[in-house]
Amino acid sequence: MSKEITSMKEDYSQWYNDLVIKAGLADYSAVRGCMVIKPYGYALWENMQQQLDRMFKETGHQNAYFPLFVPKSLFEAEEKNAEGFAKECAIVTHYRLKADPDNKGKLIVDPEAKLEEELVVRPTSEAIIWSTYKGWIQSYRDLPLLINQWANVVRWEMRTRLFLRTTEFLWQEGHTAHATQQEAIDETVQMLNVYANFAESYMAMPVIKGVKTANERFAGALDTYCIEALMQDGKALQAGTSHFLGQNFAKAFDVKFSDRENKLDYVWATSWGVSTRLIGALVMAHSDDQGLVLPPKLAPIQVVIVPIFKGEEQKHLIDEKVKFLMEQLKAAGISVKYDDNDNNRPGWKFAEYEMKGVPVRIAIGARDLEKNVVEVARRDTKEKMSFSVDGLSARIIELLDEIQRAIYNKAKIFREERIVKADDWDDFVKLLDEKPGFISAHWDGTGETEDKIKELTKATIRCIPLDNVQEAGNCILTGNPSTQRVLFARAY
Amino acid sequence: MSKEITSMKEDYSQWYNDLVIKAGLADYSAVRGCMVIKPYGYALWENMQQQLDRMFKETGHQNAYFPLFVPKSLFEAEEKNAEGFAKECAIVTHYRLKADPDNKGKLIVDPEAKLEEELVVRPTSEAIIWSTYKGWIQSYRDLPLLINQWANVVRWEMRTRLFLRTTEFLWQEGHTAHATQQEAIDETVQMLNVYANFAESYMAMPVIKGVKTANERFAGALDTYCIEALMQDGKALQAGTSHFLGQNFAKAFDVKFSDRENKLDYVWATSWGVSTRLIGALVMAHSDDQGLVLPPKLAPIQVVIVPIFKGEEQKHLIDEKVKFLMEQLKAAGISVKYDDNDNNRPGWKFAEYEMKGVPVRIAIGARDLEKNVVEVARRDTKEKMSFSVDGLSARIIELLDEIQRAIYNKAKIFREERIVKADDWDDFVKLLDEKPGFISAHWDGTGETEDKIKELTKATIRCIPLDNVQEAGNCILTGNPSTQRVLFARAY
Repeated sequence: MSKEITSMKEDYSQWYNDLVIKAGLADYSAVRGCMVIKPYGYALWENMQQQLDRMFKETGHQNAYFPLFVPKSLFEAEEKNAEGFAKECAIVTHYRLKADPDNKGKLIVDPEAKLEEELVVRPTSEAIIWSTYKGWIQSYRDLPLLINQWANVVRWEMRTRLFLRTTEFLWQEGHTAHATQQEAIDETVQMLNVYANFAESYMAMPVIKGVKTANERFAGALDTYCIEALMQDGKALQAGTSHFLGQNFAKAFDVKFSDRENKLDYVWATSWGVSTRLIGALVMAHSDDQGLVLPPKLAPIQVVIVPIFKGEEQKHLIDEKVKFLMEQLKAAGISVKYDDNDNNRPGWKFAEYEMKGVPVRIAIGARDLEKNVVEVARRDTKEKMSFSVDGLSARIIELLDEIQRAIYNKAKIFREERIVKADDWDDFVKLLDEKPGFISAHWDGTGETEDKIKELTKATIRCIPLDNVQEAGNCILTGNPSTQRVLFARAY
Repeated sequence: MSKEITSMKEDYSQWYNDLVIKAGLADYSAVRGCMVIKPYGYALWENMQQQLDRMFKETGHQNAYFPLFVPKSLFEAEEKNAEGFAKECAIVTHYRLKADPDNKGKLIVDPEAKLEEELVVRPTSEAIIWSTYKGWIQSYRDLPLLINQWANVVRWEMRTRLFLRTTEFLWQEGHTAHATQQEAIDETVQMLNVYANFAESYMAMPVIKGVKTANERFAGALDTYCIEALMQDGKALQAGTSHFLGQNFAKAFDVKFSDRENKLDYVWATSWGVSTRLIGALVMAHSDDQGLVLPPKLAPIQVVIVPIFKGEEQKHLIDEKVKFLMEQLKAAGISVKYDDNDNNRPGWKFAEYEMKGVPVRIAIGARDLEKNVVEVARRDTKEKMSFSVDGLSARIIELLDEIQRAIYNKAKIFREERIVKADDWDDFVKLLDEKPGFISAHWDGTGETEDKIKELTKATIRCIPLDNVQEAGNCILTGNPSTQRVLFARAY
């Protein structure tokens, strides 16, 4: 088998890279830190987009599109935001190339085409969007403004991983404007719930909803809400964030509105985003040493049918039956592929679709035809079953639902086992190495302690869970008094 | 009325700008030459995308995503392509900003973060994609490769117009690889037909299919096929192009495949694209002095319902009826909006939805309710009718179809009247000013003559129509012998 991948146990990181490449999700590119999203990976992203976009529209948002470039003077207007992103920005300084006089056929940057003001390739769009909102908002009647953008963004990264950390990535960013603080906070929480619902119901990936500490906040936010997931190696992954921005951007860009009493006030803001990073999370949450395990609700191909035959006559009979089954399955809304490519043997195809994480495989042979049955294999458990051809599509729908649930439950059980309390520093350190996962521990609430713990263990505070129990305790590092536990983990 | 726009007759160009702004399609941005696509304009683009994407997938294409940046050494590999785009490229030269030591709170480009190799922001993606295809194609079994990308691109423009010509725009670009020349040519023509079908069936915009002259070809193509539309001011607009690239890019990036006989050969290529420019075309093809006229198949809102009432009691009765009607219309797949905002009067709303080009307006008053009818107004002809509430959705569907046809036919008749033959230079020049449109004239086939005509009249050869009649004649400028007429026009 040319498609073998490193096993998860041997080298988790290499397993992930092998899998992303061999399953055809993405490829390295000629551009440092940037990836190519291949058709199969992009189909997964399209399915994610479709569901998220529907959820955004159901909660009253509209899509729009803002420029890729941010003039430096706008970029620096909100100081904390600018400071947070300044070190990872791609900068456009020129707008023309010209023939290299010393090197025929080559081009050089034309020094005469230097921009008066440099342009930052957006790492996030608060600055360009709030400079635009200034022209759109005068009165409370213009509020709320509920806008989302699907776009590419660039954050210069020194160490990259396919999907998880790339210099360019695709995402959506919501940017909303509100008349009151409470309305903006409600929006922030609403979108966190949309993300959590998407992660759990579609990605089959359990998440913890929480708030970031001040250290880990989005640059320019008053509060950053997040959903945190756990990967199979026990490392956490931040899967989505929703920021309450207060009036910071309204003040930076002077966006005021007159309220019902004709009083002028600054507008309240939120922003929220998820990215192609979710594809990395999906891969790491469920897959195994044979390849991807995809939740049926997002799988580009839900069912693959493989014929098993000797000779043209058998093939012909199977084709007839498959044609009939495909119509049934498609009518039931199932995405199905018939792979009768005769360059590859059935065993090769079985391995290939396991690698690609197709949730259900149907194999049909001549003897199955006689018995009016097909062989059905689940990707998640690798269990094989014999289903009657009669009423097949209804049973396949049930099976896809069952797989969706099973994948979620498996991840949930794994995650629950990996949320462990630690009340002692040695325990804390030992757990991180021996049973990596979320460690629920007391913390004295200071950024210094947080930094020190990170320095000593590489663990960070992933979040303060939203429904956190309040209890007296002592900080795991300093012993200082604490009112609640927070969740620590090593993270992607 | 605050929403009045310049009339088309008074100043066509200003009419267009006013309309785009006042209908809420787009806005100017803080970035030179870049626009903001507002929610209503973006909804139109989403509807276009949805149809085109379906057509691409039906013809066997898959979506993928390639990097925004092209390293200069790849960009310059295909010399003609590089030469064609070198003068309009945004160049990234640095990857970091730092605090300005002389100016607190300001940032400057960090001179220590200069890139070893500059990155070109993609003006088109042939170079980055063909450098990637090299790794994907070894054998005829890997072909054809049928890939499309939805993306933003940047071409530095000195003079910009909303949608029609902007430094950044959104588009799709198909990039396909084939084993034979014929297959690549067939693909080029197939995608031209997809574009023509989309323009005529969805945008209700008649187009002429043709081939560009050598002067007007895409940089790096052997042949550029195009669809050309006519705007209401008699200027032509190139609405889509499909390029046969021969083996140029395969040679530049050394992409070879082994055929069935195990012989190595360079791969054959096509590329094809349409952009947000289509929104500008749609606006200019159909709209009038009251605002947009949108074809029902692409209109974000197909039907708007406006209540006309005095007092809460009447309002309540109308609401009840509208609720029932909305359910009917939505069930019939019609996109419908009920505007019962009481901040605005019915007359204001009528004007507003005319501006926005909503194809059908339904007004319901208390007296209509008694008679079980509604008042229906067509946006295109402004005709008003009275429809019974019973069976309303079926009649609305018919009406939307009728409007789609009527808009197309009106544009078709206009276009047909504006394709005029000229056999004499004075006529040619006079026609361009007095009856602008397509001029069908003989041309001696040389680039020099083409340039000279452009210089003298600003008219260019839009295309050599695909089904062109072959006839002997004399060049309109030089009198030299010619075998066919070509279509000249002034163009956007």
